[in-house]
Amino acid sequence: MKITILSLFPEMYEGFLKTSIIKKALDKQAVEIEVVNFRDYTLDRHNHVDDTPYGGGQGMVLSCQPIVDALKAHRTENSQIYLMAPVGETLSQKKVRELAETDHLILVCGHYEGFDERISNYVDGALSIGDYVLTGGELASMVISDAVIRTLPGVIVEASHLDESFENDLLEYPQYTKPVIYDGYEVPEVLLSGHHENIRKWRLKKSLERTMKYRPDLLEKHEFTKEELKMMEEIKKND
Amino acid sequence: MKITILSLFPEMYEGFLKTSIIKKALDKQAVEIEVVNFRDYTLDRHNHVDDTPYGGGQGMVLSCQPIVDALKAHRTENSQIYLMAPVGETLSQKKVRELAETDHLILVCGHYEGFDERISNYVDGALSIGDYVLTGGELASMVISDAVIRTLPGVIVEASHLDESFENDLLEYPQYTKPVIYDGYEVPEVLLSGHHENIRKWRLKKSLERTMKYRPDLLEKHEFTKEELKMMEEIKKND
Repeated sequence: MKITILSLFPEMYEGFLKTSIIKKALDKQAVEIEVVNFRDYTLDRHNHVDDTPYGGGQGMVLSCQPIVDALKAHRTENSQIYLMAPVGETLSQKKVRELAETDHLILVCGHYEGFDERISNYVDGALSIGDYVLTGGELASMVISDAVIRTLPGVIVEASHLDESFENDLLEYPQYTKPVIYDGYEVPEVLLSGHHENIRKWRLKKSLERTMKYRPDLLEKHEFTKEELKMMEEIKKND
Repeated sequence: MKITILSLFPEMYEGFLKTSIIKKALDKQAVEIEVVNFRDYTLDRHNHVDDTPYGGGQGMVLSCQPIVDALKAHRTENSQIYLMAPVGETLSQKKVRELAETDHLILVCGHYEGFDERISNYVDGALSIGDYVLTGGELASMVISDAVIRTLPGVIVEASHLDESFENDLLEYPQYTKPVIYDGYEVPEVLLSGHHENIRKWRLKKSLERTMKYRPDLLEKHEFTKEELKMMEEIKKND
């Protein structure tokens, strides 16, 4: 898989590309990442990539020409192109899985400013990472790249994905490590018992409890097993 | 305002802290950011900060001691402490505004691994930036810092905030800049008319149309004016 990022601030990506899992994925060639400064494509003699909005108003708007020309230079038949924009589809783990199937993902970042609406004629869609406003699309493009790359084969141990939050519309159960007592707080006894079946049940129930408490909206999408339905009844009874 | 970030990968923040609006905010002293490596606080003789989970399972779990000691060393009476974790409250623009009121925000990042559950006894809550899984909390802490910092007084022109997506539960209207015709695509005539009232109405209607099309969920929270209600009727009629 290849990810091409169009941004006016390529230097913002340095730390991201050099750290931990992403660095390992690049070293292993599980993914290739290319950061392109679309200012290099402007035909404006002052090197500008933006201009004032028609109809007036605050701020500047990114012009069609530099971005569209950069897209034309980097896209292939297999490219999926997304603008980083609040108007876009909100990222979810399901969307992450979908994007991970792409051969070539192109993420276009505005910074501070919006895109000329006509740029949307040259892309497959827009993506948003959440309902908040950022100074630019750069962090959004890193979030999307990070979420996608970690699901690629060989990047992290496969089994690590199974119990994760959002993968099955449940939040993860609480985890504990040494020591057994920290500052007066103890590890739940069942986790020290060595009784695998009881541990499995305890974790599943905690997962359900937490999701019900913090993210009841996730449960609406969850497909309950018989065991889970029984646990849900117990949880509701004890509430 | 001060933001303290606890992370095992301080180098990941370099690009973020040196770029654009965040750099300007730091230079203007609108905000102070401190990145602390909590590995510096471990008492483990091999410098470890994690261990295997009680009860078995994949992966490692971040231990209480290094994080809690780092928190004790950096927190003050006015600190608000949040873990970056999927179980947390999902970030929204409303939450961003709330966090921006804090004197001292401490954001704690796990990386790849989860936190020992008992760490939650030492924090005010957990925050998530969306329903997807990241390799670590670092990008989440940058997203939160970025969203908060840009709302601080003097960081960006105040008036720029008014029409933004999410600030009033509407998506922003489409923007256009020169040229009037690009590759056959034209700027809507009303924006070239110079008629301010018509432009205002057109933009408001487009905002409503887009929000209805892409994010009908936002409209449920929106408080409609009489003018907007009338426009909504027109939009529904034309659909």
